[in-house]
Amino acid sequence: MDTPTRAAAAGGTVAHQLIAAHLVSGRMAPGEEIALRVDQTLTQDATGTLVMQELEALGLDRVRTEVSVQYVDHNLLQADERNAEDHHFLRSAARRFGIWYSKPGNGVSHPTHMQRFGIPGRTLIGSDSHTCAGGSLGMLAIGTGGLEVALAMAGRPLYVTMPRIWGIRLTGELPPWVSAKDVILEMLRRHGVHGGVNRVLEYHGPGLASLTAMDRHVIANMGAELGATASVFPSDAAVRDFLRAEGREEDFTEVTAEPGARYDLEEEIDLGSLVPLIAKPTSPGNVVPVREAAGEMISQAVIGSSANPGLRDFAMAAAMVKGRQTAPGVSFDVNPTSREILQDLTRSGATFDLIAAGARIHQAGCLGCIGMGQAPAAGRNSLRTFPRNFPGRSGTEDDAVWLCSPETAAASALTGVITDPRDWAEDRGVDYAAPRLPECASVNTAMLEPPPPPAEAARVKLERGPNISALPDFDPLPDTIEGPVLLKVGDDVSTDEISPAGARALPYRSNIPKLAQFTLTRIEPEYPERAARTRQDGGHLIVAGDNYGQGSSREHAAITPRYLGLRAVIAKSFARIHWQNLANFGVLALEFDDPADYDRIRQGDRLRLDGLHAALAPDAEPKLRVRNTTRDEEYGVHHHLSARRRNAVLAGGIIPALAREDSSDDR
Amino acid sequence: MDTPTRAAAAGGTVAHQLIAAHLVSGRMAPGEEIALRVDQTLTQDATGTLVMQELEALGLDRVRTEVSVQYVDHNLLQADERNAEDHHFLRSAARRFGIWYSKPGNGVSHPTHMQRFGIPGRTLIGSDSHTCAGGSLGMLAIGTGGLEVALAMAGRPLYVTMPRIWGIRLTGELPPWVSAKDVILEMLRRHGVHGGVNRVLEYHGPGLASLTAMDRHVIANMGAELGATASVFPSDAAVRDFLRAEGREEDFTEVTAEPGARYDLEEEIDLGSLVPLIAKPTSPGNVVPVREAAGEMISQAVIGSSANPGLRDFAMAAAMVKGRQTAPGVSFDVNPTSREILQDLTRSGATFDLIAAGARIHQAGCLGCIGMGQAPAAGRNSLRTFPRNFPGRSGTEDDAVWLCSPETAAASALTGVITDPRDWAEDRGVDYAAPRLPECASVNTAMLEPPPPPAEAARVKLERGPNISALPDFDPLPDTIEGPVLLKVGDDVSTDEISPAGARALPYRSNIPKLAQFTLTRIEPEYPERAARTRQDGGHLIVAGDNYGQGSSREHAAITPRYLGLRAVIAKSFARIHWQNLANFGVLALEFDDPADYDRIRQGDRLRLDGLHAALAPDAEPKLRVRNTTRDEEYGVHHHLSARRRNAVLAGGIIPALAREDSSDDR
Repeated sequence: MDTPTRAAAAGGTVAHQLIAAHLVSGRMAPGEEIALRVDQTLTQDATGTLVMQELEALGLDRVRTEVSVQYVDHNLLQADERNAEDHHFLRSAARRFGIWYSKPGNGVSHPTHMQRFGIPGRTLIGSDSHTCAGGSLGMLAIGTGGLEVALAMAGRPLYVTMPRIWGIRLTGELPPWVSAKDVILEMLRRHGVHGGVNRVLEYHGPGLASLTAMDRHVIANMGAELGATASVFPSDAAVRDFLRAEGREEDFTEVTAEPGARYDLEEEIDLGSLVPLIAKPTSPGNVVPVREAAGEMISQAVIGSSANPGLRDFAMAAAMVKGRQTAPGVSFDVNPTSREILQDLTRSGATFDLIAAGARIHQAGCLGCIGMGQAPAAGRNSLRTFPRNFPGRSGTEDDAVWLCSPETAAASALTGVITDPRDWAEDRGVDYAAPRLPECASVNTAMLEPPPPPAEAARVKLERGPNISALPDFDPLPDTIEGPVLLKVGDDVSTDEISPAGARALPYRSNIPKLAQFTLTRIEPEYPERAARTRQDGGHLIVAGDNYGQGSSREHAAITPRYLGLRAVIAKSFARIHWQNLANFGVLALEFDDPADYDRIRQGDRLRLDGLHAALAPDAEPKLRVRNTTRDEEYGVHHHLSARRRNAVLAGGIIPALAREDSSDDR
Repeated sequence: MDTPTRAAAAGGTVAHQLIAAHLVSGRMAPGEEIALRVDQTLTQDATGTLVMQELEALGLDRVRTEVSVQYVDHNLLQADERNAEDHHFLRSAARRFGIWYSKPGNGVSHPTHMQRFGIPGRTLIGSDSHTCAGGSLGMLAIGTGGLEVALAMAGRPLYVTMPRIWGIRLTGELPPWVSAKDVILEMLRRHGVHGGVNRVLEYHGPGLASLTAMDRHVIANMGAELGATASVFPSDAAVRDFLRAEGREEDFTEVTAEPGARYDLEEEIDLGSLVPLIAKPTSPGNVVPVREAAGEMISQAVIGSSANPGLRDFAMAAAMVKGRQTAPGVSFDVNPTSREILQDLTRSGATFDLIAAGARIHQAGCLGCIGMGQAPAAGRNSLRTFPRNFPGRSGTEDDAVWLCSPETAAASALTGVITDPRDWAEDRGVDYAAPRLPECASVNTAMLEPPPPPAEAARVKLERGPNISALPDFDPLPDTIEGPVLLKVGDDVSTDEISPAGARALPYRSNIPKLAQFTLTRIEPEYPERAARTRQDGGHLIVAGDNYGQGSSREHAAITPRYLGLRAVIAKSFARIHWQNLANFGVLALEFDDPADYDRIRQGDRLRLDGLHAALAPDAEPKLRVRNTTRDEEYGVHHHLSARRRNAVLAGGIIPALAREDSSDDR
């Protein structure tokens, strides 16, 4: 194992310093696999029940992190008993394993974690792709698959590919009616949904001074939409102010880039030049100025989610609608992000103003952002301050979801059409005023249950409802994979399409056989049935374009197709977290040497991969040949698996690999 | 047609006066069919989409009532596009037919109607069984099937059986920690869920003076749970105070019983003697003192619904939890009943106190009360201030729902176990203080859209989503019914069991073929499939015990089994609204002459009814013979159908009967 040295932090950026301080093994050279010590973890309920099952499978007694928190924010609708049973299971598991438990209604994990647990200089990983929001406090915060989180809880390091550090220099100040959301939408406008792959986005420069920690959360959060490994801000005066308001000034430490810090890539944004932006359906990358879409009728406007979670975001919208009425045909939905923020919003009178203007105030949680309710009518425009608008994620097949700032959402809710808030203000003669926020937040920890002491924890029984299955056992990788291409898909297929969330599927998150019946049905309704038929017969393959598995970190998107017989995916490229999840559960993720070969394969072709055991030996070249027996052709493919991951894939996944290790330790 | 005369009001009770003032035909003798002029109607979204389809089928141009209001309060979860499509359809239909439209989020129909539209002395019918809550303002308010509401909108009278007037004399004053909910629970404790059948419950006496109009709403609302036709309070100073607070004092008129008014039945309740009561699972009639159930662990406490809708109810709970924390294992859910009440609650600081104590604040609506979300874990106790706890209505198959006052719910949420609020107060040294309420409510009508003027309305197009089917056509009654008893059920089967609501079924409320697949599945999962097979073969019958079809007014509980081939139900007795709905959609509702014959029939037996056309002639005796061809037995049965209803049943339902009338008018 390498010893991390100060020299390893060469580069001197905040990201380099955070990585160097947590480096367990590997070289800090872009593209190399590195292992990082994990200080904190977060899990949420949609991914957390599996993580708890994994902790059980690993035989863990008590977590070894500094702090681990289980949030309940995704499945709050409780359409039947399964949601509530998951909540009871999660609470019992949190108590059993020494994890904090954040009750339903306490809030969305990311802002709540930032408010109560975030500490500059620490590492945080979470089984939620927006965990990267923690970068707002000068943390290295990374969204991963649930199994990575379970392993981190068990004291093992996180393995990632050393990213390139992308310095984004901010200058100037945001103009009136333009806010943090427009900064990250500008990044998406410039670089699209692949722009951040294998990169850490590190923001710096004089423009930072005008961005609060919560503004930075907005920007860091949606780094996930660029495919970035993480987003990082320095820990400076703004972070100190934030922690002071949260009653945790003692948790502050300064973390700033060294003078002359060197970024692998450089970018500049003049905040003063930005305009209100909006992402059109159906990708966060379809960004245009709001004025280009102005005048389109809307039927819904929603504010909230981890992409605009701050008190400021709600207070701004409240100030805009105060004394006015939202348009008759529009549902104006307000999703508070945490109990704390709802308390402050209520104390200030802003909740009253929102209600009076026609808002539907919902409980604190993810709600419509994860497709749990608030689904719009088909084809009718819904404006949301959310991070994602992948097709169908709203719960509506033919949805038309747009992503924008609270200012744009509020102005449009008032007019009933997509409206640039600057034009609304000019029409109505409204002067811009930044909302005044309290110096101290309504800190309230009563819905955050600390874990009991070890002796008491050891006696806690897991409260497992009938809908919580055990993890399926997966067999080792055979030496030959031969099977049909059951599905050929295009670019940017999201994990929402692979394993849908939403009100129908989400309640089955703890029940793999049942959840598997939803796998890829948004793309091919018969996939689950046809896939299951391949199981006894060697399984099947999927062929994909670029950025396969973008979006949510859900490992169900790897487990459920694997359960249905998927053995390999051949793609032009993969999204980072899904690529990890495939390896973790023993699915071979291969990339075309020549992307043009993608066009030569048709759905239904039979492919064959031979000699896999030798090909995945620790020191073998990462190259393989795929034989298309239908067309009698051959293609070159390669993989990015480290020796450690090859071992896991060969064993059928990380859990069987660890079990094999343990049993060889016994000998 | 009889002319109503002052003499017809003999009896002199409020109920007699209201009936006499609206009598169109019939004699005011208990048991006789009477027809009443309808001044106001309300519909909600779960039943309203069908009502709008019925208005279309009737060819209505514009409603002929004084006021008709379409509320959206039931289906607010929007798990997929169907809810939102229903909302758009309802708004367009309201605009087309001259109906007020209350937007999603504006509130639950009953309290909202009371606040904005209720007028003493008027009649109100609604396609919701709790419409009877309107009796709190000295109205005659009756829950009916949707078709009755559609016909009333079209200017036709409401036909009901002249009820007996049950005078309930209230004396004394409620003790601390005992509230209006305990009054109606006491009635249910004394008389059970059949106690009010064919009765109007009229409250009078000196005890009234201490009950506000909203307290009376609580009591009137749950008259539905006793099976009553209506509940009536006088319009007195308390009603004047209420209307003044709502800015509508000009709508006040006094309606009080004449001196020496004569009730058909009499009852007395000393309010001062009441104690906190609770209805145990799974019937509102299972009432015991809270102390008898004290100490049972709970996992959920919910306040809200039309059964405890008032600002006072929430303010009371808020005062109890202020500065305290709800128990760790308990979800404390607050369902505001209207935007207005949430505004007032927020203005007073009570919303803040609830949030700080751990409440999950939900949007204004029915929510968990109609099984749209908030489902508890199986077998775990949920305390609710709701009106009903029929099995499965919560969305959880094996639920354990208890009904109680806000005081009992709040005390139990704090302790984590079922708790008499008096004991909680004594333990904690808390003095009782009635909440102080504002003199004027936050009246806000912006989410209530008035209908456009006729010329504009005529141009409105109905916005029909793909999930909104047309009403099915039903064939006339054959002269002979012969078929199997596909289902034999016990007493008190509710319409929740016949046509489930809840998050799975409710989105299909506008789609009969699809909704039919849920029919009676709570009792017999294979009913829909087996029933559908009888359709081509003469249909089938159901045999039931007492009070068949209790609960919700949903006409789907008649339409969907009819769609699946149901031709007759033979029961010991029927709940009023469901009995009407069966007749409205052409299903023959028969009662055993000798209830003991119920025991002689087995599920699967084949029954035969002959000569139905003659037997249902206007002047025929209401007696029939049923032949059990499996057992070679015969039973005497009878019906209560008026000549008008016989005609409808013969035609296959009211809509075909009206069509037949119209075409004979044309000749």
